[in-house]
Amino acid sequence: MNFSKEPDNIRAIQWCDEGLMILDQRKLPHDVSYEIVTTAKQVADAIQTMKVRGAPAIGITAAYGVVLAARERYVSNPINWKNKIDEELNLLAGARPTAVNLYWAIRVMRDLIGTIESDPVPPLLDHALRLHENDIIANRRMGELGADLLTDPAGILTHCNAGSLATGGYGTALGVVRCAYRREPKMIYASETRPWLQGARLTVWELQQDKIPATLIADSTAASLMHAKRISWVIVGADRIAANGDVANKIGTYSLAILARHHKVKFMVVAPTSTIDWDIRSGSKIVIEERDSRELLMDCYLRQDSVINAWNPVFDVTPGALIDAIVTEKGVVLNPNLNRMNKLNQQDTIEG
Amino acid sequence: MNFSKEPDNIRAIQWCDEGLMILDQRKLPHDVSYEIVTTAKQVADAIQTMKVRGAPAIGITAAYGVVLAARERYVSNPINWKNKIDEELNLLAGARPTAVNLYWAIRVMRDLIGTIESDPVPPLLDHALRLHENDIIANRRMGELGADLLTDPAGILTHCNAGSLATGGYGTALGVVRCAYRREPKMIYASETRPWLQGARLTVWELQQDKIPATLIADSTAASLMHAKRISWVIVGADRIAANGDVANKIGTYSLAILARHHKVKFMVVAPTSTIDWDIRSGSKIVIEERDSRELLMDCYLRQDSVINAWNPVFDVTPGALIDAIVTEKGVVLNPNLNRMNKLNQQDTIEG
Repeated sequence: MNFSKEPDNIRAIQWCDEGLMILDQRKLPHDVSYEIVTTAKQVADAIQTMKVRGAPAIGITAAYGVVLAARERYVSNPINWKNKIDEELNLLAGARPTAVNLYWAIRVMRDLIGTIESDPVPPLLDHALRLHENDIIANRRMGELGADLLTDPAGILTHCNAGSLATGGYGTALGVVRCAYRREPKMIYASETRPWLQGARLTVWELQQDKIPATLIADSTAASLMHAKRISWVIVGADRIAANGDVANKIGTYSLAILARHHKVKFMVVAPTSTIDWDIRSGSKIVIEERDSRELLMDCYLRQDSVINAWNPVFDVTPGALIDAIVTEKGVVLNPNLNRMNKLNQQDTIEG
Repeated sequence: MNFSKEPDNIRAIQWCDEGLMILDQRKLPHDVSYEIVTTAKQVADAIQTMKVRGAPAIGITAAYGVVLAARERYVSNPINWKNKIDEELNLLAGARPTAVNLYWAIRVMRDLIGTIESDPVPPLLDHALRLHENDIIANRRMGELGADLLTDPAGILTHCNAGSLATGGYGTALGVVRCAYRREPKMIYASETRPWLQGARLTVWELQQDKIPATLIADSTAASLMHAKRISWVIVGADRIAANGDVANKIGTYSLAILARHHKVKFMVVAPTSTIDWDIRSGSKIVIEERDSRELLMDCYLRQDSVINAWNPVFDVTPGALIDAIVTEKGVVLNPNLNRMNKLNQQDTIEG
């Protein structure tokens, strides 16, 4: 696979002979530290503990996890290696609940397993590498499609991290940012994204690596940014998109969409079609992961006699009606609804 | 002065013989640490470095600062102690730019200085203590007036800290919360309030002291909270209110007001009339303080070759049109505008 150094410099997941090299995103921006995982269990742990995060990156990582599972099973039992491999597949699928790319990647790999007769590693690895490469190609395509929509010279706000780190490379929302910035420099704003600070730790770090100037804001500052007319678009990724165009994404996305509509700022979601869950008709059916309240609560509130709790949902659902454009590798859906999303589903490429 | 232990247990500023005892709010919730300041310069520093914060508390602290300034001047020069005291008054007034209570308190004390012939400490201290006590009385009154508006059993969201810590005691927004909770328990939500985490460090700590159960959320979670119909009111304090009812308050307040309107959640501002700047006709004229970008940026973005900046305005302006009620000690202004605010200005008590 050609990991081009241009125009982005970061690969958070890379296959090597021993296994899968993973950039531990919990340690960024202070330490740029890779580790090599060699078992499906380690891959599931890496997803669960957020060493790897971002819906497309989770999908690709899980696909490599299936390769590792098959390698383990085949080495210990070359005849009946398929018998219990569902244990690892289910472990990987259960690592996090919201990103549909995870289930999609495992389904694709499981289907392939059904067709394999001999050593499973070469064909599975070949397929995982292809998924990975196709993700980067899709991101480049989405970057161009999204940048085509940015006719206003004002700045762009992005939330969380939907960049190289969150995908196979180049990024979804940050792919559009990279492409738009290359065409014509404009100010990029990144929101901190509490509680995990993906914006402060990952997005501005990633833009720093590519020498794209960016301004960090507290999440609460977005409305002031819009009021001051500093931005004309909010651009985000997605963890799961329902068939009607409702979008589950990092907590705070829904809030930004409401604020954008109030200020006549446009709102763009950038995600590969593998993020779309055609089986879910509306966003209200999407399972929203709630993470440990200790991501918010200081230790002094954890004592037995404490009356202080925290509510820590890590995603929210933005209705399609608040979204101006969903950009996928197959085309752009403007003002998404069930009907327009269906057209995307029925053809290879649709016109914006 | 009667510092009642009921129904709130916290006093962040207290006069004692040596000077002014100040609870260092930068160290909360981990350390509850008081220090005694004895000079106007130390008082200005305490305000500037946010050992003391919250518009009413800043005003009261500055009043005590004037007492300390007069004490210093009078000791060194009992005849001409007034000559250069404007130096300290200006130092105090310049400590922070947005809270109008600061200027109001210094103006009141300066007027009093003009009338004093002998030892200035007893009359100035008497007046500062009265300002302090009146602030607590006003907060209790606002607590009742605000609680009268809460007819829905759903929860309340408050932003930043407008509690005992931010005032002479009892609090403005948290005064309403305390009063409402005493009448009928309901769930209190507090937003973290980045970057300084007044919600996570101060508000839930303060509610913990009073055994009022509260749930902390990330700032970005407010929209989900409203969508889930968990709250019926957002209740906040104010740093400055323009004559038309526009409100400058902690960054994120404007955002919450837009989200509240979108979800048909009501929005209440609680502040003493000393927070109203009748000389400013609209919120667009209010000076918004911007603090150091290092409150947001990690060290690795501070190097010379960094392309990453931060924008850190610490207040925003919420237009009166997005506010359902401004609660003051003189009465409630529903749906504030210039005309309705004028009525508040012209009478001692108005009807909601």
